[in-house]
Amino acid sequence: MTLSASEHRVLVIGGDGFCGWPISLHLSQLGMEVTIIDNLNRREIDKELGAASLTPIWSIEERITAWREVSGKEIKFLFMDVVEEYEELLALVKAERFTSIIDLAKIKSAPYSMKYQKHKKQTIYNNLISCDNVLTAMVESGLDIHLVHLGTMGVYGYRLPTGEAIPEGYLDVKLESKKKGKLIDWTIPYPPSPGSIYHLTKTQEAIAFQFYNKCYGLRITDLHQGVVWGSETELTSLDPRLMNRFDYDADYGTILNRFMVQAVINYPLTIYGTGGQTRAFIHIKDTCKCVELAILNGPKPGEKVHIYNQMTECQRIRDLAGMISKLTGCPVQHLNNPRAEDLENELVVENETFIKYGLKPTLLSDAIAKEVLSIAEKYKNNAIPSVIKPQVKWRKEDPDP
Amino acid sequence: MTLSASEHRVLVIGGDGFCGWPISLHLSQLGMEVTIIDNLNRREIDKELGAASLTPIWSIEERITAWREVSGKEIKFLFMDVVEEYEELLALVKAERFTSIIDLAKIKSAPYSMKYQKHKKQTIYNNLISCDNVLTAMVESGLDIHLVHLGTMGVYGYRLPTGEAIPEGYLDVKLESKKKGKLIDWTIPYPPSPGSIYHLTKTQEAIAFQFYNKCYGLRITDLHQGVVWGSETELTSLDPRLMNRFDYDADYGTILNRFMVQAVINYPLTIYGTGGQTRAFIHIKDTCKCVELAILNGPKPGEKVHIYNQMTECQRIRDLAGMISKLTGCPVQHLNNPRAEDLENELVVENETFIKYGLKPTLLSDAIAKEVLSIAEKYKNNAIPSVIKPQVKWRKEDPDP
Repeated sequence: MTLSASEHRVLVIGGDGFCGWPISLHLSQLGMEVTIIDNLNRREIDKELGAASLTPIWSIEERITAWREVSGKEIKFLFMDVVEEYEELLALVKAERFTSIIDLAKIKSAPYSMKYQKHKKQTIYNNLISCDNVLTAMVESGLDIHLVHLGTMGVYGYRLPTGEAIPEGYLDVKLESKKKGKLIDWTIPYPPSPGSIYHLTKTQEAIAFQFYNKCYGLRITDLHQGVVWGSETELTSLDPRLMNRFDYDADYGTILNRFMVQAVINYPLTIYGTGGQTRAFIHIKDTCKCVELAILNGPKPGEKVHIYNQMTECQRIRDLAGMISKLTGCPVQHLNNPRAEDLENELVVENETFIKYGLKPTLLSDAIAKEVLSIAEKYKNNAIPSVIKPQVKWRKEDPDP
Repeated sequence: MTLSASEHRVLVIGGDGFCGWPISLHLSQLGMEVTIIDNLNRREIDKELGAASLTPIWSIEERITAWREVSGKEIKFLFMDVVEEYEELLALVKAERFTSIIDLAKIKSAPYSMKYQKHKKQTIYNNLISCDNVLTAMVESGLDIHLVHLGTMGVYGYRLPTGEAIPEGYLDVKLESKKKGKLIDWTIPYPPSPGSIYHLTKTQEAIAFQFYNKCYGLRITDLHQGVVWGSETELTSLDPRLMNRFDYDADYGTILNRFMVQAVINYPLTIYGTGGQTRAFIHIKDTCKCVELAILNGPKPGEKVHIYNQMTECQRIRDLAGMISKLTGCPVQHLNNPRAEDLENELVVENETFIKYGLKPTLLSDAIAKEVLSIAEKYKNNAIPSVIKPQVKWRKEDPDP
């Protein structure tokens, strides 16, 4: 019972956010019926941090009005907190008979999650209760719904002892059976190794997915996403009111976007430690395409949790800084690393599934970097330099960055 | 810097509970300085469930007074909620300079955790925030404290594809390296497979332990405990006011204790499904001894998380029912299984560490079963038969038990 795009009724939880908004537009454009719920917590956190999107972003109501005017398509929005309003969530799921739920209802910043005890608590509480409420609503609705969850490549801890590519979620191992005198094959979820409380919650959600899949047969896709860069897509560019967020602060700015803003305001490109960390990356356009492909290729009844690596390339941080520096002339500055992580790591990642489904990767090139730089340039007067320097140390006793 | 028993200052979080109280007495008797904190939530849940300990239990204040009178030893008690009162917890840890923290601050019933969404939420919230608050307090105190956490054998999912014994927390696997053309050894945390929301939280805590150990070098011992049976120890028997809980209801009664109560009130011994489930067991006296041994043999600085299987024998449920039936003449009754679990499983478990440290297992025998039966017999007039039948189904569509 494969549905065509126009038969999909999709709930996007967290659809006002950096990934959620362009994903919602992308799915709506494909003809899917899209409902967004969001507690607008991300906008609240901006106030707490004294930070803001570099790009001017409109309210979710204005965004939806603009989308209707531009595309003739309707996106519904409900202000709802899936952590606190379980009964409302369940009632909505039953009434709208969603075919897919995209769960982006997460506090997703590693440094934010490591700030103080209250931020840890808030991250754990928000991320794990939202996770369980969504899964419970799926069970209690009695409907056949496919959950697509946006996770992170960080759950792997960037290491596999063989040095070979990190597989997509599952690992084939061999167990020595002394009794039988031979090796037994076993496929297990990849052993998690989180590097922050935020990443920890993602690894904890992953076990919840395994449990609900095993106990209730829930159909779930977990996307291990790389660091997202870029901000605009073809659709967010259609009208100024559709513009996406562009974060560059030390807590929420993803590294490449932060470098772009630093470059245009001539704030030295700050890298942590040697910058030898290698990370997986993906452009926001590809994020949208991957979620589409995940929805259209959901698990069949009885299948185990699908886990895909949603990334298109690996890059070393100092190489990225070097590239932006070369393009812009902005110098590079090394800071003491505020995080507890390996200063140098290799990284190779399998991402065959999305390629097989038809993803055409938007790889980092001078041309595409320049495109993002031009957005940063256009709004550089909005930049607040003081939010760029990292304030949160993983270990209090470490030297200040 | 190995400490002798009398040099230990131990915080028992949840020290008013079924395991916490006899553990606290045991450690105090050894000469350790014991402080209990507890939010007394377990007593509240009794009210919610209309259930109660079969044995009359005194308030924690009366218990402590009795202990002082009987032993001349002082146990401190603070009414504190480690989930909601982080600053108070941290202040206490700093002021008392604990050497060990025993974390029993958990909602620990599988059926309770599966009742309704609010019970799931309560279990996740309580168990994971208490876990993180304790770990954060350890980090922020700057003290060298050893955390001993009481977990469950249920995290393993009772299976290893080789059919050999379940190891103690870690699994040795081999990875195929195509590049190097050989097998690479890797030791990983045992892949978790929880069977309820309660068990899920235990597997989620386990990753938190790995993270805090990796990032901050925290010294942690995680005890994977079997199903506890019995209720009294040498010390709880010294005075009626020191008496321990004895639960027999479908939510909190552990199976062997529940059978004992059913037998003395001639309520057929109810087993779920075929009763072919095999589980690991431990007597409450051995629980106390194991926690002592865990404290005295904590990880050295830099060591990974210690994980021990805290159990002494494996038994199949229908064999246990048969044994009690034979002893008492009480018949056995099969109910539809309200849980989602394998109806038949084999189980072999490694428990060499505690044996090596000196545990002398209290194994199930007619004599010891009769000792527990005599407690049940003595208080059988307190039994409320209506709380014995299971009410919570894992899957709504399953037939009623």
